[in-house]
Amino acid sequence: MSKPDGESNTHTGRYTEPVPTSNLVNDGDDFPEFEPFDDDATPRSYAPSAGAIAVVNVDMCQPINKPNHNTTAYDNPNLVVRRGQEFLMRISFNRLLSQGDDFQVEFLIGSNPSPSKGTLIAVTFGSRRGGPWAGRILELQGPSVVVGITPTANAVVGKFRTYVAVVTGNGMQRTRRDARTDMYLLYNAWCPEDPVFVPNDAERREYVLNDVGVIYQGAVGAVSHRNWMYGQFERGILDACIYILDSSRMPIYNRGNIIQLVRKGSAMLNSQDDNGVLVGNWSDDYSMGQPPTAWTGSVQILLQYANTGVPVCFAQCWVFAGVFNTFLRCLGIPSRVITNFSSAHDNTGNLKTDLIFKMDGTPDRRHTRDSIWNYHCWNEVFISRHDLPPGLSGWQVVDATPQETSDGLYRCGPSSVAAIKEGLLCHPFDSGFVFAEVNSDVVFHKRDRYGTLSPYRVDKLHIGQLIYTKAVGSFSPQDVTHTYKYPEGSGEDASTMARAEAYGCERDHSELGESQLTVSINIQPVQVSQDVILAVDFQNQGDIPRTVKAHLDGSVVYYTGVTRKHFKDYDFTVVVPANETEQVILKVAAEEYMPHLGSQLGLRFVVTGESDDQPLTAIKVIELGTPALTMTVSGQPQVQQEMFVTVSFTNPYDFALKNANLAMEGPGLMSSRTRSYSVIEPGMSISWKESFIPRLDGPRRLVAVMVSDNLRQVWGEVDVDILP
Amino acid sequence: MSKPDGESNTHTGRYTEPVPTSNLVNDGDDFPEFEPFDDDATPRSYAPSAGAIAVVNVDMCQPINKPNHNTTAYDNPNLVVRRGQEFLMRISFNRLLSQGDDFQVEFLIGSNPSPSKGTLIAVTFGSRRGGPWAGRILELQGPSVVVGITPTANAVVGKFRTYVAVVTGNGMQRTRRDARTDMYLLYNAWCPEDPVFVPNDAERREYVLNDVGVIYQGAVGAVSHRNWMYGQFERGILDACIYILDSSRMPIYNRGNIIQLVRKGSAMLNSQDDNGVLVGNWSDDYSMGQPPTAWTGSVQILLQYANTGVPVCFAQCWVFAGVFNTFLRCLGIPSRVITNFSSAHDNTGNLKTDLIFKMDGTPDRRHTRDSIWNYHCWNEVFISRHDLPPGLSGWQVVDATPQETSDGLYRCGPSSVAAIKEGLLCHPFDSGFVFAEVNSDVVFHKRDRYGTLSPYRVDKLHIGQLIYTKAVGSFSPQDVTHTYKYPEGSGEDASTMARAEAYGCERDHSELGESQLTVSINIQPVQVSQDVILAVDFQNQGDIPRTVKAHLDGSVVYYTGVTRKHFKDYDFTVVVPANETEQVILKVAAEEYMPHLGSQLGLRFVVTGESDDQPLTAIKVIELGTPALTMTVSGQPQVQQEMFVTVSFTNPYDFALKNANLAMEGPGLMSSRTRSYSVIEPGMSISWKESFIPRLDGPRRLVAVMVSDNLRQVWGEVDVDILP
Repeated sequence: MSKPDGESNTHTGRYTEPVPTSNLVNDGDDFPEFEPFDDDATPRSYAPSAGAIAVVNVDMCQPINKPNHNTTAYDNPNLVVRRGQEFLMRISFNRLLSQGDDFQVEFLIGSNPSPSKGTLIAVTFGSRRGGPWAGRILELQGPSVVVGITPTANAVVGKFRTYVAVVTGNGMQRTRRDARTDMYLLYNAWCPEDPVFVPNDAERREYVLNDVGVIYQGAVGAVSHRNWMYGQFERGILDACIYILDSSRMPIYNRGNIIQLVRKGSAMLNSQDDNGVLVGNWSDDYSMGQPPTAWTGSVQILLQYANTGVPVCFAQCWVFAGVFNTFLRCLGIPSRVITNFSSAHDNTGNLKTDLIFKMDGTPDRRHTRDSIWNYHCWNEVFISRHDLPPGLSGWQVVDATPQETSDGLYRCGPSSVAAIKEGLLCHPFDSGFVFAEVNSDVVFHKRDRYGTLSPYRVDKLHIGQLIYTKAVGSFSPQDVTHTYKYPEGSGEDASTMARAEAYGCERDHSELGESQLTVSINIQPVQVSQDVILAVDFQNQGDIPRTVKAHLDGSVVYYTGVTRKHFKDYDFTVVVPANETEQVILKVAAEEYMPHLGSQLGLRFVVTGESDDQPLTAIKVIELGTPALTMTVSGQPQVQQEMFVTVSFTNPYDFALKNANLAMEGPGLMSSRTRSYSVIEPGMSISWKESFIPRLDGPRRLVAVMVSDNLRQVWGEVDVDILP
Repeated sequence: MSKPDGESNTHTGRYTEPVPTSNLVNDGDDFPEFEPFDDDATPRSYAPSAGAIAVVNVDMCQPINKPNHNTTAYDNPNLVVRRGQEFLMRISFNRLLSQGDDFQVEFLIGSNPSPSKGTLIAVTFGSRRGGPWAGRILELQGPSVVVGITPTANAVVGKFRTYVAVVTGNGMQRTRRDARTDMYLLYNAWCPEDPVFVPNDAERREYVLNDVGVIYQGAVGAVSHRNWMYGQFERGILDACIYILDSSRMPIYNRGNIIQLVRKGSAMLNSQDDNGVLVGNWSDDYSMGQPPTAWTGSVQILLQYANTGVPVCFAQCWVFAGVFNTFLRCLGIPSRVITNFSSAHDNTGNLKTDLIFKMDGTPDRRHTRDSIWNYHCWNEVFISRHDLPPGLSGWQVVDATPQETSDGLYRCGPSSVAAIKEGLLCHPFDSGFVFAEVNSDVVFHKRDRYGTLSPYRVDKLHIGQLIYTKAVGSFSPQDVTHTYKYPEGSGEDASTMARAEAYGCERDHSELGESQLTVSINIQPVQVSQDVILAVDFQNQGDIPRTVKAHLDGSVVYYTGVTRKHFKDYDFTVVVPANETEQVILKVAAEEYMPHLGSQLGLRFVVTGESDDQPLTAIKVIELGTPALTMTVSGQPQVQQEMFVTVSFTNPYDFALKNANLAMEGPGLMSSRTRSYSVIEPGMSISWKESFIPRLDGPRRLVAVMVSDNLRQVWGEVDVDILP
């Protein structure tokens, strides 16, 4: 008998049988074809007696079951159904059924299946007691019988083996293992008894069935979006998701428990700890794999992981979130990708992000440890939380991006969004961590000559200003900030903060005088290779004029807020009349930042200043825009009819683009295709045409992305409505 | 700059600096000896000016600080103090201090220390602002100054580097790194502001300072005990505990957070996932290491792990709990070892332990997956849970024995004992799992000829009958069952169970008729190689006499309840008069079980029977007793005076004991010694004498254990009161 990986015989005295952690099983492990009754004392005959009933065919009724279970889109030869809902089987016998004939249908999953563990279910159709799944006879047609079987709404999820057993005189005669009757059982958002139930049909179609999405990126005031092809129905993806659970050695018993499943998933999507799906890489060096910006979706990643068993290189937060979303939707769990703009990180779970400045007012990069991510992506799953008090069900945060501080391990959630909004941080899992990501204060410190820090300003508004997800049934953003937070300054917000502090979140309570002199920065959207114009406003709310010695600091930053390259320092002085605002226009030329971009598109500008010992600071992050790929389709938009797509691009820059790699895909339309150009000279145009044959009907999207050595994140998309 | 293990340059865009996860640091990383002020614009002189103040000596005042901080027992050349409590330092200068002289004491821990992360603390002694630790000048004696320093009660715990810096004209002049002034900072059970505060002094002495303990084992009705030498003060142990945290890559920032620390500890004590301290082995084959029964305490295990970095072979639950207890007490955390008798396991977190019987009433070992451990050991830590609602502070379960089902990972707790008692399973961590260990019902199923299970009896009393720990200040057991559970059948118990079900714990609700016929087994204590006498009582509460066809099944079992060897089947019939009890005496001869013992001492007897289709079952587990080692001491019982201990043993059996290995130790008295005998013939005596020199005074204990191929768990102990 096979043992789970990592279990040696050192555990023989620990378990009666090895704990099954793999959905796979060796043929012949399940049953003998003829199993005599234990209690039968008569001489045993292993051949069925003449005239005995026997099964000649088992039909899983896919054409009927798949539409009823909303599983038609799965490109899978086997039946896929959802739990808590009846499906049909047609069983054909060698003769008409007569009084006294007794049969049962058996579903088995994993090794050592057991009725007490929900991994071996016998379904009976008469008065004889069977397992917990309901069975009924719907129709008798000659020697065939159509049965209806309803798995329980808390059944184990995965791939079951199906057997039909008939009772002969002194034993049970079973059908042989037939891989064609294997059946996938999923979570069911359409079933009110399933903890993943979603009442609204438009939401179920979006959060379970939509295989195309957009993920928001950029920065507050300069939000951009990226298409992501979830592709949860593409060939091989459902098996890849089960492979991930097997790799994680998650006991089969627990796979019907939604909370354990999503928590395990958040750990398995990243490769830390457990050899999971994706390797994080936040450098500018992706030579050992694919840059995170080059993926168009999850399909290639999941297939590569399932085929090789080796973590796929490389990911950043939106890749973790995109692939996790595919995993969740593929298993039937309603889910969506969330973007939190100005996300606090690495601040050890307290509610302070500490930024440190030198005595002359310039940023002290050496002593600043915390960073504010321009944005961070995670997932939400829609779950009824029976493990928590009432009111905390609904959307739950799960995050697959490896975080140092989540329980010391690389997993996060499920954490109730409602609990975060109320500051109820006393419930599992990791709510204090998520709370800090959206609610931290930014504390500005001045570091004195002795190394001592003194706070001089606290910004309570900067972190978690905006939280976005794709809207239901459209490609527009939906602002979900209010689901995480009460309005800043409201009484409810104060209660939430007080509750969070009672549960151990540390906040800053420095007594700081109200400053009468403030500064802010405004920047209009800028494309790569354009000059940046900063409008810096100094506001003097006092009754005396002030002279400010100011400084502009410019850096290329990673989206994690970490400095890639500091490229500009500029001192200037401004006189601000009493009760007025003085605007200074500063220009940063393209030549100043272009040599330092690498593969990043983020620029951070910090204006600091001092007047009469009163320090002031403003920070502005922008994301540079990129040109687009143009995409057009032609041909008859109909299932199984050939169509064509053309991707074209003209280099608008005065520099050549080197090693340009293009990728394109569209779930239900076309699997991933790639094309490379070693160089695209200034002004040069490229055009790339591919044919495809749509598999699924309805509104569908094709996306393409181009990544070159010196310009990334060039996107294109085209929508097409395929007729049935 | 060194990077934490596992962090490659793929994370350069992720963190401003590598996250410090090691308490160690390379010399010279901290500071230059002379650090000019950032803001000093004058030409820089790197030599102190003439007449400048300079530090000539730093004295950590161990003879004063150690008794005040209850750390005298640590066999460590450096100062060990507890946080939230003042300690003294004497700093000697090159001349008398004068007006205007300015100095500060700096404490650093880990790499990249930072004042905003609590890993670099500057203590000032005047009006100038410093870090969060309070400093005051206590005494000026010529050129020396005695200062008092009070670390905050939430400070990072570990080994700090100490520097004294004086302000010269244009910079800071620091003392050189001196390993002799390194200081260990621990959790403080004596400090009301520390979350580990224990108000009662006797409890603090037991749960933090006692370095000797007993761990309860055996079975209900046959409780035995094992001495365990915690040895948390022995040489090298404190460094080994810090090494464990470093191996776990736990960020230094988080080490002052008691909840994160104990949770990380529970994961690190076992080798699964993370290359931790101990390798579990529940087989009878320990050829690759030391049998779990052969350890006398934690010291050897921790030193071996710290010296090699390789997990130590082998452990079972009491070894995990014993070593974890050392780790906790060594770091200043109040803790104790708990034994739960008849502990439910591997039942996927629901409240059912399913035992399956065949149609003829005999145990169906092939289909039974769950097991009931004769006993299971875990730890409790005493913590104020600021992260939970009021009422859930106090003792918290933490368990280092690897469990499959705890959050899918090999860690467990901290889980509030008060929350378990109330069924409040909606709070972190793992309370549902611990709740099931002490509250599961045992459900007896009959498996019919078709493989279907039918429950016929539910035993609500069997699991978690008795929960023991060592009493404060004595070697007797303290029954703490009532801290986990309300009395069975009480109204409070019903409320707890209802609450647990509301939070998702599944229970059995089979409607079963009250049986009028029951059976029970009683067995008097038995020594290895003695016959076992079973008194089997059949009670008939009905008004008609009953004839019972009964069966006795006997097995050698591991302490995990898993069958090692089934050795006896015996059928018998008994007639039970109406309203009477009929006793049957059954004898199991020593020759029947002795060949199958291996290294186990547990026997399980199951009596099943049937009368008029009514099945009945009784289960009884016993642990065979073993002979004792005799230990005597001689010599003057005084610190630093030579003494002698003699261990003697006579083989009482008619068989030879092969490969007998003896080990002996006593914290504060003697480090571990071992001795081997290849054979001890029947009737033969051995005597082993060792000398030792006591290091610590007070009541102390020496223990010895003997393990041979065919007899384990032979113990001896002797107590001695050492004069100062």
